[in-house]
Amino acid sequence: METPAVRLRARLTPDRPAIAMSAHNPLSAKLAAEAGFDAIWGSGFELSAAHAVPDASILSWETHLAAMREMVEVQSAPVVADIDTGSGNAVNVAYLAPRYAAAGVAAMVMEDKTFPKDSSLRVGGRQELVPVEEFQGKIEAARVADGPLVIARTEALIAGLGQDEALKRGEAYAEAGADAVLIHSKQKTPDEILAFCRAWPGRVPLVLVPTSYPQLSFKEVAALEKVGLIICGNHAIRAAVAAMRETFARILAEGGIAGVEGRIASVAEIFALQGDGAMREIEKRFLR
Amino acid sequence: METPAVRLRARLTPDRPAIAMSAHNPLSAKLAAEAGFDAIWGSGFELSAAHAVPDASILSWETHLAAMREMVEVQSAPVVADIDTGSGNAVNVAYLAPRYAAAGVAAMVMEDKTFPKDSSLRVGGRQELVPVEEFQGKIEAARVADGPLVIARTEALIAGLGQDEALKRGEAYAEAGADAVLIHSKQKTPDEILAFCRAWPGRVPLVLVPTSYPQLSFKEVAALEKVGLIICGNHAIRAAVAAMRETFARILAEGGIAGVEGRIASVAEIFALQGDGAMREIEKRFLR
Amino acid sequence: METPAVRLRARLTPDRPAIAMSAHNPLSAKLAAEAGFDAIWGSGFELSAAHAVPDASILSWETHLAAMREMVEVQSAPVVADIDTGSGNAVNVAYLAPRYAAAGVAAMVMEDKTFPKDSSLRVGGRQELVPVEEFQGKIEAARVADGPLVIARTEALIAGLGQDEALKRGEAYAEAGADAVLIHSKQKTPDEILAFCRAWPGRVPLVLVPTSYPQLSFKEVAALEKVGLIICGNHAIRAAVAAMRETFARILAEGGIAGVEGRIASVAEIFALQGDGAMREIEKRFLR
Amino acid sequence: METPAVRLRARLTPDRPAIAMSAHNPLSAKLAAEAGFDAIWGSGFELSAAHAVPDASILSWETHLAAMREMVEVQSAPVVADIDTGSGNAVNVAYLAPRYAAAGVAAMVMEDKTFPKDSSLRVGGRQELVPVEEFQGKIEAARVADGPLVIARTEALIAGLGQDEALKRGEAYAEAGADAVLIHSKQKTPDEILAFCRAWPGRVPLVLVPTSYPQLSFKEVAALEKVGLIICGNHAIRAAVAAMRETFARILAEGGIAGVEGRIASVAEIFALQGDGAMREIEKRFLR
Repeated sequence: METPAVRLRARLTPDRPAIAMSAHNPLSAKLAAEAGFDAIWGSGFELSAAHAVPDASILSWETHLAAMREMVEVQSAPVVADIDTGSGNAVNVAYLAPRYAAAGVAAMVMEDKTFPKDSSLRVGGRQELVPVEEFQGKIEAARVADGPLVIARTEALIAGLGQDEALKRGEAYAEAGADAVLIHSKQKTPDEILAFCRAWPGRVPLVLVPTSYPQLSFKEVAALEKVGLIICGNHAIRAAVAAMRETFARILAEGGIAGVEGRIASVAEIFALQGDGAMREIEKRFLR
Repeated sequence: METPAVRLRARLTPDRPAIAMSAHNPLSAKLAAEAGFDAIWGSGFELSAAHAVPDASILSWETHLAAMREMVEVQSAPVVADIDTGSGNAVNVAYLAPRYAAAGVAAMVMEDKTFPKDSSLRVGGRQELVPVEEFQGKIEAARVADGPLVIARTEALIAGLGQDEALKRGEAYAEAGADAVLIHSKQKTPDEILAFCRAWPGRVPLVLVPTSYPQLSFKEVAALEKVGLIICGNHAIRAAVAAMRETFARILAEGGIAGVEGRIASVAEIFALQGDGAMREIEKRFLR
Repeated sequence: METPAVRLRARLTPDRPAIAMSAHNPLSAKLAAEAGFDAIWGSGFELSAAHAVPDASILSWETHLAAMREMVEVQSAPVVADIDTGSGNAVNVAYLAPRYAAAGVAAMVMEDKTFPKDSSLRVGGRQELVPVEEFQGKIEAARVADGPLVIARTEALIAGLGQDEALKRGEAYAEAGADAVLIHSKQKTPDEILAFCRAWPGRVPLVLVPTSYPQLSFKEVAALEKVGLIICGNHAIRAAVAAMRETFARILAEGGIAGVEGRIASVAEIFALQGDGAMREIEKRFLR
Repeated sequence: METPAVRLRARLTPDRPAIAMSAHNPLSAKLAAEAGFDAIWGSGFELSAAHAVPDASILSWETHLAAMREMVEVQSAPVVADIDTGSGNAVNVAYLAPRYAAAGVAAMVMEDKTFPKDSSLRVGGRQELVPVEEFQGKIEAARVADGPLVIARTEALIAGLGQDEALKRGEAYAEAGADAVLIHSKQKTPDEILAFCRAWPGRVPLVLVPTSYPQLSFKEVAALEKVGLIICGNHAIRAAVAAMRETFARILAEGGIAGVEGRIASVAEIFALQGDGAMREIEKRFLR
């Protein structure tokens, strides 16, 4: 049987990296899959935003896990779960990993910050890393037989510790069993990331989240031949917010809903996304 | 103490109806409140859509209740909870009503269809109504001392039973204690609704959801002097879907995220919506 | 791979029926498995009781499903999920069945009462059955490829419709694909059940819940050679309640906790049930 | 309006301490209230045990909060919520406190250990404390206007830091706004606790959990005139486990359920605890 993890691993091809789109609910996951993305990024940032709370370990892993399970239920692209720090130490990780595995996710991304985490892109955010050995233990704890890939995310660049520390951590994490290494940067240009990628010895594929340096194209990343996965980290919620804002303002300004009709999805489209077709099939087959 | 119900009741003014915007998560509720809507419509249709399942009593009331509670937590506009059929009979209603009250919602809208419900606007949907007396019992069961307003929604027009039946039901529901009557229509023009409103004896205010007849402006509704609340029933999710679709397609077509940057909300905006300011205040006061 | 359903099916041996014990939380499931029961009865009655609400479709299937998932996580006996009426019609069943399958349950027991159900043993309870054809549709909707066994429960005897109706329903359900038929009775003696079992043509194994007629021994049931599974329907919660009542009263009467020490489980026993051994192993392997 | 916190505060009378009983679900809370306990201890240890996982920050605060809310719903004794470490730092506390307040708990007990916590009574458990100032910040973050009492729990004795450190911490916590101080000890005799109580300057009442030294009677505690609340920390689950074990073994040994009938609660008792009487009233009033 081809597990989601096996399917995803086969797609982590540095000459043509997989592209993942963020999601904050099953609907955005389904839209991303329909659009043609290779994977769904089960983003903690987006999920927190959807709940209107900071991405700072406020929501628990249980809410995140439930969201991942539902994303798996309603569409078939592999789901890459953003488990933040693993919600504590290696013991916490050892308890949650098999539960994420049972939920059917293809991969778990775990970062080397202390719990409770702060958002990586937050100005003045708290960015403390755990010791390398401690995080190696967490990576080992995250590995489940025939379970999700484990992607180790180092925040060394985010924390301002420099490329050497980032490389050292990346390699140590691969050694501990990580299937890929996510390297995050908040520089406004890709220079820092490009330098890291070029210096990466290539033991396992890298993963990038180019939120801060959007000018880096997917093709340029492919040319590096080091990156297996590019994650569009928060574009679903950012698109949704802008559109809701505009639609809400317009309805109030115009004193009615007629003006927005042509600019938003039709009710029929929503029905279709809810799986109306599948339900009609169910009704026909089983409802008597 | 002014409860949310008391605040909402004071706003149900037929000469200037309150306007509610639908929400499918706390974030969309917060955006609607910030935009200036008078109330949040805790829509079952939107919530189902966010979970990518049909609006046909698939999600349970527990998931809906949890969403309402969170909407109340993160913003302060009154939340009008869409409790569908009350998830069963009057006994079910009697159990869920105090739980919605405790969650802080301002009103509950309950419809006179049988459980499991089907979506009102669905082509060929199952639209069966419960007997008037049975629904009166459910309305009485929904009333909680100092709790949410009870808005009775009749689907008589949706079910094709005509204006007389709709009026009879509306009046019977008001008699049973409903604080307002939601009259729903799926006609593509406002004629059916306008006729109903004019014929309504006006014992309690009406509530409209003009999804099917968007051409009816808020001002025209106000001129009727019968309607206390206009609900924009599904515009948050429809706006979000269109925007995500467009953004997703564009990113894949362009091979990168640079092109969408200026068209979607900034990361800073999302931080602000997550309450970054409040969290900074918390950090300053309590984090040592 | 041997699924839980396959394992359970192999144990439904009429010459030596499997014995299931009810559970209301993962702990009672684990205790039942440790005691040697062949299966866990994921009882809606016990779960409702644990939440201190009636067993009348008050709790949603989502709460029940979450409980089943956790029972599967913490012990390895097959879990037989009590899904009541399937929470609505065949459409509801078609949506919840794959979710129970994903939770790893070995079987689902679905009953032919209308939603919302009332408890079978409740004096003066509402006991209405759905038409045979409708329930056949629900059985078909419940079948998931390589998923849980579907056990059809007929309440014909409970509803006072007599043995012929019960047999007719049982056979119709087996024909629709039920893997076993649960026949329930609230007679204070086993006569009604014994007559039914003897008359049963034996197409699929029967399932009994002898709450009302406890005098019927497992050996006597085995002698019928018709019954594959005997469910002890509510003995976990009944044991727990009696013991808590006694312990609570004694502590208050004695003005201290010394007197109950020897009569209740030790703290060390609770630690062991929480999996302290496994956690020590995790700490040793992964905590650095 | 008399909030649960106000009611509980009035009961923290050192000359006759309130007695709280632990609960792991709404049913055990209801049983404790019916037995006559003054308060319910919403125990993290019992809740973890009910889920068959260690009491080591495995379950999230969301599961605990949901359990507290339900305990408040089904009975009226004040609920004292065991929030462990507050699930992180002061920021986490600031987010969860208003949510516990909204759930209607009367008090929150927060301990000065690091997250993830380990169980206090666990042999060889990890018992590290946060700095005093940090915990003072957490106490301040936990205070909600008109909300639950904040009870600061110091693990100084558990961590082997001695009475002076325990006193220093207790006083610092009272100064930061704690309404009471829980002092925990795992000594097998009450000597350590008695010495602490006598040395306590008495600024706020103390709270004891005499699990390890059960020989200390409630009357002896009252005689100290320092303790406002005695918590029976885990007796509900320990009573339940012993009884389930015995009942399960007996049923299997006897090959039937007849033998346990008289030793466990009757089905009628369970119906009563589920609120069958209230439901009959609901049916009579509202079901048509």
